Amino acid sequence: MMPQSLHASDLADRLGLVLRGEDRSVTGVGTLASATSSQLSFLANPRYRAQLDATCAGVVVLRAQDAEGHTGSVLLADDPYVAFARIAALFDRPQDTAAGIHPTAAIDPSAVVDPSASIGPHASIGARSRVAAKAHVGPGCVIGADCVIGESCTLVARVTLVTRVRLGQRVLIHPGAVLGADGFGLAMDGGRWIKVPQLGGVVIGNDCEIGANTTIDRGALEDTVLEDDVRLDNQIQIGHNVHIGAHTAMAGCSAAAGSARIGKRCLIGGGAGILGHLELCDGVVITAMTLVTHSIKTPGEYSSGTPLMDNRSWRKNAARFRQLDRIARRLASDAKDHE
Amino acid sequence: MMPQSLHASDLADRLGLVLRGEDRSVTGVGTLASATSSQLSFLANPRYRAQLDATCAGVVVLRAQDAEGHTGSVLLADDPYVAFARIAALFDRPQDTAAGIHPTAAIDPSAVVDPSASIGPHASIGARSRVAAKAHVGPGCVIGADCVIGESCTLVARVTLVTRVRLGQRVLIHPGAVLGADGFGLAMDGGRWIKVPQLGGVVIGNDCEIGANTTIDRGALEDTVLEDDVRLDNQIQIGHNVHIGAHTAMAGCSAAAGSARIGKRCLIGGGAGILGHLELCDGVVITAMTLVTHSIKTPGEYSSGTPLMDNRSWRKNAARFRQLDRIARRLASDAKDHE
Amino acid sequence: MMPQSLHASDLADRLGLVLRGEDRSVTGVGTLASATSSQLSFLANPRYRAQLDATCAGVVVLRAQDAEGHTGSVLLADDPYVAFARIAALFDRPQDTAAGIHPTAAIDPSAVVDPSASIGPHASIGARSRVAAKAHVGPGCVIGADCVIGESCTLVARVTLVTRVRLGQRVLIHPGAVLGADGFGLAMDGGRWIKVPQLGGVVIGNDCEIGANTTIDRGALEDTVLEDDVRLDNQIQIGHNVHIGAHTAMAGCSAAAGSARIGKRCLIGGGAGILGHLELCDGVVITAMTLVTHSIKTPGEYSSGTPLMDNRSWRKNAARFRQLDRIARRLASDAKDHE
Repeated sequence: MMPQSLHASDLADRLGLVLRGEDRSVTGVGTLASATSSQLSFLANPRYRAQLDATCAGVVVLRAQDAEGHTGSVLLADDPYVAFARIAALFDRPQDTAAGIHPTAAIDPSAVVDPSASIGPHASIGARSRVAAKAHVGPGCVIGADCVIGESCTLVARVTLVTRVRLGQRVLIHPGAVLGADGFGLAMDGGRWIKVPQLGGVVIGNDCEIGANTTIDRGALEDTVLEDDVRLDNQIQIGHNVHIGAHTAMAGCSAAAGSARIGKRCLIGGGAGILGHLELCDGVVITAMTLVTHSIKTPGEYSSGTPLMDNRSWRKNAARFRQLDRIARRLASDAKDHE
Repeated sequence: MMPQSLHASDLADRLGLVLRGEDRSVTGVGTLASATSSQLSFLANPRYRAQLDATCAGVVVLRAQDAEGHTGSVLLADDPYVAFARIAALFDRPQDTAAGIHPTAAIDPSAVVDPSASIGPHASIGARSRVAAKAHVGPGCVIGADCVIGESCTLVARVTLVTRVRLGQRVLIHPGAVLGADGFGLAMDGGRWIKVPQLGGVVIGNDCEIGANTTIDRGALEDTVLEDDVRLDNQIQIGHNVHIGAHTAMAGCSAAAGSARIGKRCLIGGGAGILGHLELCDGVVITAMTLVTHSIKTPGEYSSGTPLMDNRSWRKNAARFRQLDRIARRLASDAKDHE
Repeated sequence: MMPQSLHASDLADRLGLVLRGEDRSVTGVGTLASATSSQLSFLANPRYRAQLDATCAGVVVLRAQDAEGHTGSVLLADDPYVAFARIAALFDRPQDTAAGIHPTAAIDPSAVVDPSASIGPHASIGARSRVAAKAHVGPGCVIGADCVIGESCTLVARVTLVTRVRLGQRVLIHPGAVLGADGFGLAMDGGRWIKVPQLGGVVIGNDCEIGANTTIDRGALEDTVLEDDVRLDNQIQIGHNVHIGAHTAMAGCSAAAGSARIGKRCLIGGGAGILGHLELCDGVVITAMTLVTHSIKTPGEYSSGTPLMDNRSWRKNAARFRQLDRIARRLASDAKDHE
């Protein structure tokens, strides 16, 4: 049910924006560089300011100060990116899913599926698991035993909930994600590994999003926990008994090892790693590919690594890294000599 | 068939532990902080020693020296973590799987499945592949042509064995793992890539464990090999023709590039990378997010990277990394001047 | 239809090589160290030169200068690795796939599948998607709505194309790959995240290869694009609106964040990361586990990181990294004193 078109004045009313200029109607959204006269665009990042003059977009969402001198129709917003996100959602095509269980799905007799839920082709639902109202379990998903899928959750396709995974409401999980696999618990016994049973589960709060091929292990004794509104990108690894605070976002390929505790409203950069049993307080920002090796008690931005260089310069400087302690010692001893 | 309860004296007999205090019965296991009086807990890591005094656990497994002054029931163990792992296993709920082939599974006529094996919903087994006694191929697994799944293996769900993958006995593979995909073999020919056929297979020893979404490519000419009791966490990448020695464990998101050879009893930290064609001797420990750029011939611990800092300090120091060679040269020339 | 055997003279004719020595027939290929007298091997990397004397291989492909003094049958090639790749392809067993739709597959009535295509067990094809001639959609693949699978593409198994993914011809995708999932687009609105709709798609050129468990998100407004002959290894993450130039290859576990633009004929090392919105010109080489933090305008090799050391040395030197700015300042001030 994609809308044929929306008037700029309607959008202004719905979202509390100010329309300036002609009340044009738009049938979709686009970038400043590519939008046509029947599309709406936005300007949020100042470095795209130059594209505003040349845009063909019928309507542009922007801040009042950026609208100075622009002659086209504009919607003035305090936060144009948020306003744009809300408008774009109106043009997003809803999924082609109807309530009911696809004939190829395999549902355990002890599982309970709400009649308003939809279960896709080749999905399977294990013993004692429950799928709540309006939830969507897409094609090829595997839901093991004792799981709960809350109201209006969407498991896009090929998602696995292994066992004892409980999702809140409106959780969105992308393909290939695996929640509730065994944590990596091993004990060395006479030269051989023995497995430490993983008896806990996974608890995911409301409004969380979990990216494609991301893995979240279940706890060893207690649960692995994501609080409400946690957002995980693709290919993230969350070890057993990790706890992630509300509104924290982690970028692609980052990882938190077992029993790490990440606060609320943290931002973890792509490829960053957090060692096990550490604690990060609320409001911590970790830059990309940083390794967090100790707990962090003060909000702020943290980093590790070295700058990017051409390989020849890098080789020369990196070789000196091996001598850093010797250099520092010599300097200290020189300083002493001069005293 | 979860046991209703087990007596501490029974556990002492089974595992060769010493019971001190009342012979209480327990119905499960928990952490020192959360266990109830009908649960058993353990103390292995000294930093949790303070929790012992306050624990409600009915029975605690610990070392004799840690039991001093504790008045509750205890089981004395030389290695409490190993003892706990064995006890917890007694309380682990077995999988809900019965022998036989699910009606939705697709089995090639030339495949052979032992009658005591179980094949889950929507699994497929390719030409000439064999599934041995008591093996479990979970929902959504895809087994290609010419694979062997040994006795008592468990492929939890959505595991793919592409082709020519041979598993030993008791191998455990978690969801999303892909074994036997093409190695990344390319040759540049007149400005375009041509593919180097990957004609080898993958051989996995007994008692190996392979984590969720881990990938192990098949060999180009010979096989990619994991010896017995190798333990791989989630999201690990193993290139073609890699060889991993017995009892080696790799943590999440680590990777070994093509033809790398890792010894026995190595520990590879999370996110660490090992370049292609390198050799690591037995007993090597690589810390998290280290890049291994040359072969290692001496057992011990190896690292690369820089320490974690607040971003402001990091920026100042990282900028100096670019000048390191210049600084070292100036120092060397100063030293000469003083001679 | 594996050939029983091929004569060296036939191979010389087919590939434009020069046969020197007896015209032997071979039934397969192997490494210099393992090939038998009925197999063909090759010597491309000079460090395996010593293995040539001891090889049992019936025929060896190598450069003329490496053939000096070798008495067996040889095929002389300018690029022995390319020649070997072509010969090995002749011995590669073709997939066991026949045209047609497996009875367990679920095809949307509005999807169009060419009669010469093959659709494997438990695959599903969504609304309005098209599968072209001779394409193969393997077991457990999930194709969402509005996708196009070009002629002679192979989706090995358990591949997901979420929505609006268009593949060129002869694209090869390995198991677990996910193309077209939502990009990671979020806006912070009054302390909570709101989702930015991802309205674009993914466009993959001809002859691309995409590794196991690799993820390529669809664009926010425009498409994520891989030009022709791009080769991605396993577990790579490609963010929304990334653009990758023709003939670029990325090694395992590397990543490109949203809107990054990578040129043609680049080589990105394993575990390397490229931050969002950056541009890399054609012909850039990034070494393993390097973080690219700024755009690159000059072809060449680029790196970051520190060298591998034994942990004790590393700790001492890494601690000094924290003092680098202080050391450099002191040196600068000393230099001033001496002026």
